[in-house]
Amino acid sequence: QIISEKLGKSSRTVDTELESQIDLLRDVQRKYLHILRLSRALSSHFHHVVTTQQGLGEAFADLAQKSPELQSEFLCNAETQRSLSRHGEILMAALDFFVSSVNTLVNKTMEDTLLTVKRYEAARIEYDAYRSDLEIVLQSPASGQANTLADAQLAYDEHKTEFEKLRADVSVKLRFLNENRVKVMHKQLLLFHNAVSAYFSGNQTALEATLKQFNIKMKTGNIAPSSWLEQ
Amino acid sequence: QIISEKLGKSSRTVDTELESQIDLLRDVQRKYLHILRLSRALSSHFHHVVTTQQGLGEAFADLAQKSPELQSEFLCNAETQRSLSRHGEILMAALDFFVSSVNTLVNKTMEDTLLTVKRYEAARIEYDAYRSDLEIVLQSPASGQANTLADAQLAYDEHKTEFEKLRADVSVKLRFLNENRVKVMHKQLLLFHNAVSAYFSGNQTALEATLKQFNIKMKTGNIAPSSWLEQ
Repeated sequence: QIISEKLGKSSRTVDTELESQIDLLRDVQRKYLHILRLSRALSSHFHHVVTTQQGLGEAFADLAQKSPELQSEFLCNAETQRSLSRHGEILMAALDFFVSSVNTLVNKTMEDTLLTVKRYEAARIEYDAYRSDLEIVLQSPASGQANTLADAQLAYDEHKTEFEKLRADVSVKLRFLNENRVKVMHKQLLLFHNAVSAYFSGNQTALEATLKQFNIKMKTGNIAPSSWLEQ
Repeated sequence: QIISEKLGKSSRTVDTELESQIDLLRDVQRKYLHILRLSRALSSHFHHVVTTQQGLGEAFADLAQKSPELQSEFLCNAETQRSLSRHGEILMAALDFFVSSVNTLVNKTMEDTLLTVKRYEAARIEYDAYRSDLEIVLQSPASGQANTLADAQLAYDEHKTEFEKLRADVSVKLRFLNENRVKVMHKQLLLFHNAVSAYFSGNQTALEATLKQFNIKMKTGNIAPSSWLEQ
């Protein structure tokens, strides 16, 4: 059927509205995947920054103890780096939550709908094939053979039902997905913005409030102090 | 001479104060090298963060244009990421200046003094060797040979002069290096602290003022937008 469609030998059933919705979903998925890749990269690079700040905090503190001539300078820097790495771990928790939620949306929820879309597209091809068959039988001079006609009609009816069922499924799933996507992204983009703004304006209280608001738990245990060396 | 010193067969000239100063310098160099490595790593990781923020800024702005349903959420995030990456480039200039200055101190200024220290240590070994020779000649029963004695005395005198000259050189260099080190590190640690504090508290004015105060020029031209992919 695909080949004869491409050769222009048979027609295809087109649902313009549904197909443009499907195209839109594929486009949105591609764009969100780009955001996902970038925010994963940000999270990874930022993790290295936090670990290095932790190391610098320790190195400055050590030098503050052993350099009376530059004690206050080393001490200031030790405190800043230590505090940044502590707050950085809180931002990491927010970034990881964002990455994990967008990952679920893009690679689970959207994929699930796109699986139904693929089944719908396959059913559409089968349906059009049986529709072509029926048309040929109806137009052929030998249409007097009642059995052939009845078989073609039965196959056509069955595949029409299957196709229409899947078309309805896709339509419903697309609507729910869209509602879900807007809800999830509204929440995640708000979290991302609030956490990033709070951290990069040094507002520790707002950063902690954001995590609490979005019910994000910090992982217990510190980040490995030497992981920046592994690059 | 080194071997006979190790075997306890000959004595070595010890300048306790100078040697403890030299040990201290080597220790300080090792510690500053650690700070240098960490701040280089910080600069590199932070560079990746800034480039990723730039990419995220563009991606969010693109989605803001194409998603009326989440326009304000994407727009907020686009502006935050873009502004962070712009300010991040200013912090990068400060970090690079710190790294470059500490690198000069540790790998040029300190190395130069340590080269003189090495020449001083070699001269000390030679001097002690000729001193031992002279002692042997003076104690030997055949000390009547005036030529041998005169030769040993001459060699001893020459190497004593060389040794004392280098000891004075090292002493002077160590004093100047110490003054220079305290001056350089005082300035760099102040810059590092002020730039980092200003950036991570979102104080753009203070960040720019810090760069101006330390006379740091921004590199023209943007950072490569895709370098985070290269990892």
